[in-house]
Amino acid sequence: MSETPDSAVQTATAAVRTYIEQHRAAFLDDLAQWLRIPSVSAQPEHDADVRRSADWLAAALRETGFPEVEILQTPGAPAVFAEWPSGEPGAPTVLVYGHHDVQPAAREDGWHSDPFEPVITDGRMYARGAADDKGQVFFHTLGVRAHLAATGRTAPAVNLKLLIEGEEESGSPHFRALVEEHAERLAADAVIVSDTGMWSEDTPTVCTGMRGLAECEIQLYGPGQDIHSGSFGGAVPNPATAAARLVAALHDADQHVTVPGFYDGIAELTDAERELFAELPFDETEWLRTARSGATYGEAGFSTLERIWARPTAEVNGIGGGYQGPGGKTIIPASAMVKLSFRLVAGQDPQHIEKRVTDWVGEQLPAGIRHEITWSAATRPCLTPLGHPALQSVVRAMSQAFGTKVRFTREGGSGPAADLQDVLAAPVLFLGISVPSDGWHAPNEKVELDLLFKGVETAALLWSDLAATAV
Amino acid sequence: MSETPDSAVQTATAAVRTYIEQHRAAFLDDLAQWLRIPSVSAQPEHDADVRRSADWLAAALRETGFPEVEILQTPGAPAVFAEWPSGEPGAPTVLVYGHHDVQPAAREDGWHSDPFEPVITDGRMYARGAADDKGQVFFHTLGVRAHLAATGRTAPAVNLKLLIEGEEESGSPHFRALVEEHAERLAADAVIVSDTGMWSEDTPTVCTGMRGLAECEIQLYGPGQDIHSGSFGGAVPNPATAAARLVAALHDADQHVTVPGFYDGIAELTDAERELFAELPFDETEWLRTARSGATYGEAGFSTLERIWARPTAEVNGIGGGYQGPGGKTIIPASAMVKLSFRLVAGQDPQHIEKRVTDWVGEQLPAGIRHEITWSAATRPCLTPLGHPALQSVVRAMSQAFGTKVRFTREGGSGPAADLQDVLAAPVLFLGISVPSDGWHAPNEKVELDLLFKGVETAALLWSDLAATAV
Repeated sequence: MSETPDSAVQTATAAVRTYIEQHRAAFLDDLAQWLRIPSVSAQPEHDADVRRSADWLAAALRETGFPEVEILQTPGAPAVFAEWPSGEPGAPTVLVYGHHDVQPAAREDGWHSDPFEPVITDGRMYARGAADDKGQVFFHTLGVRAHLAATGRTAPAVNLKLLIEGEEESGSPHFRALVEEHAERLAADAVIVSDTGMWSEDTPTVCTGMRGLAECEIQLYGPGQDIHSGSFGGAVPNPATAAARLVAALHDADQHVTVPGFYDGIAELTDAERELFAELPFDETEWLRTARSGATYGEAGFSTLERIWARPTAEVNGIGGGYQGPGGKTIIPASAMVKLSFRLVAGQDPQHIEKRVTDWVGEQLPAGIRHEITWSAATRPCLTPLGHPALQSVVRAMSQAFGTKVRFTREGGSGPAADLQDVLAAPVLFLGISVPSDGWHAPNEKVELDLLFKGVETAALLWSDLAATAV
Repeated sequence: MSETPDSAVQTATAAVRTYIEQHRAAFLDDLAQWLRIPSVSAQPEHDADVRRSADWLAAALRETGFPEVEILQTPGAPAVFAEWPSGEPGAPTVLVYGHHDVQPAAREDGWHSDPFEPVITDGRMYARGAADDKGQVFFHTLGVRAHLAATGRTAPAVNLKLLIEGEEESGSPHFRALVEEHAERLAADAVIVSDTGMWSEDTPTVCTGMRGLAECEIQLYGPGQDIHSGSFGGAVPNPATAAARLVAALHDADQHVTVPGFYDGIAELTDAERELFAELPFDETEWLRTARSGATYGEAGFSTLERIWARPTAEVNGIGGGYQGPGGKTIIPASAMVKLSFRLVAGQDPQHIEKRVTDWVGEQLPAGIRHEITWSAATRPCLTPLGHPALQSVVRAMSQAFGTKVRFTREGGSGPAADLQDVLAAPVLFLGISVPSDGWHAPNEKVELDLLFKGVETAALLWSDLAATAV
């Protein structure tokens, strides 16, 4: 008598849990070993540690069973690539993305224990990288083993690939080139990014997209040197004034961005998406406490969650010009500077935005103010439609693991996931189990062990579901 | 047979010139001696030099014949006061103002010779302080001697007082208090300021007023710390944006200042004054070269000279907030800062301006942006009406010395002259012989010797004229 699909899932889940329970202690020991390697990509004195971290992970993946594991060199820190073919014709290919480098951390920043000596207390593991991102990368190792154990397979139900980069905390400067170089080996039907979080311990969520990012610096030049504001004030253009007026002119009174063409091609929120956002147990007071801001502020007609997840922004990250020391100095400054960043949403093309902003800036400035505008490498937005079958697989696996309804979020930030989406032309799904209190980039970073093992479970259940779904 | 007034002046002028010619070499030797003292008030390592400069001047004034000379102590650098009563009942009292401290100077800034070792070349004396202001203070010593020699008097025709401060190049922090403390001794019917310049060598001019100055720093606070522009961008107020919008909102499209009440009480330019400005041989291209600006820019309806001499301004001297280092940083900054200065013209009251600007700033900021505004000590504007008899005396003496028509200018900057005007309730006249090429505050400062001796002549002729004029 064959089981119903539901009872098959229940059986698989039970088997997965049994396997995880048996391997729990060894898994935590291994993770702790990895966390002891201070793979801080931003600090050159840790270059050797980042390489050691890649080597450690490569060995761990080989031990997990991946038949093909390789260190991929970049001009910076190395990435780790691993592949485990399903062996079944027609099986979908999935690429898991994460990173093995971590943020800087020092005991004197306020850590209660050595950031590179993991401590388990009250069901949490404290260490730099515990949540961001070693813990979330590592749950895939036990995940795939549990998947094999529960299904009796010797290879995963999907062609499973992992790409774990080593420069994410340094802005992934070589990531896109790496993906382009190895595009054929990395080719996948779906990308699973395990470098995000969920709403809260009680509210598991799947992120469906990230905003993109375009960044520029505008240098403004007025007089050939700082000049006396008494002798010349009121009769020549002031570059600090010009900088301020540029920033002020970026938005209208409703906080819409005024740059012509800025909203071209944008994917407007559907009513269904807005309803899903509104369903989340959002506490604005609590959110403001996290933001440490005294008030919300933004584009008219949108809620706070809509503003940070689904609306583009024009933000000034830095401004400077003239005399900034103590006291006064009655000058018209020779120059000023503005750093702007634009968060972009699905449908917006960074190159188009850069061109439109560049044109607009040139039109704003009076005679006598020269300028230079420099754009940094942009990140495209990414968004997976709610109805995408691979997204549905992730939701089912996660619901099963957590035993509750899974909701949807987006991410206001930007990340290299978009490069995978672009270069590999594959949808990006986010499987992250971190919670806001985990302290990414902060002292006393931790991962909740319960959630870590829910991540293992989700990963263990996901491959069978994806293989059964046309992705 | 008595001489006609004109021929009396001719005779006096000839006598003055003869006397000056006889004492020219000794005068330059003495001035060079004073210029060798590096009385840099802004540099604490020169405190002793500033005191030595005051002592040197006091001795020189005693030798000139001033019966009363005293060093006036302040919490900072000392000033020198000297008085020479006329002895004639009803003689007017005149106070000459100047300063004995100088700007910093170092050979490596681009000086062709040691800034504190005067060099005479091609009719110019090069040294820090040659024009600003030791040369212009010192011409009064030979001036009063020539006045006595030419008139056969043993005391000046006016009650002559000198107040030569030692902190002008450091913003005169104790000057007003000094004037208030010694107001009775300093009391005068007119103040002669010898710390300005004239239009050019060919166009002698008298300055009739200076702009006032109010200065503030505005600190703006947003989130409690720099926050991630991905996680929060678009949904909280950004203090750098608020700073920029404040600056941008200061002016309307015609570059009028928008702060309500800013123009209250202002003395509008008369047609006669505008015509006098327009008569000056103003070369805008040359002026832009001096300003090192690519274009003029300012309040609609006013010429460049009107803008800098007779119109108030709102200028940003410094702005800063967020990340200003190399590359980008995707933050919403915790704070930002703006330094504003307002040049004021006759009729504007600094306290009224401070109140109006303070109120206005408070009204501009959104919820979630806290601010603090700090005002520095203000300087009032000063303006002597064209028809004032003492001003006419200065014009006559200068015309006679230079042998040509004297025109009128104003000064766009602000200075302690206004404190004398206020505290002593006396009109301020400007007798300055420096020219724009003299390089105040710059390397290779110099004074034109021809003009220096025209200053001596003017001072020598002025006291008789003032005594004969009801001031």
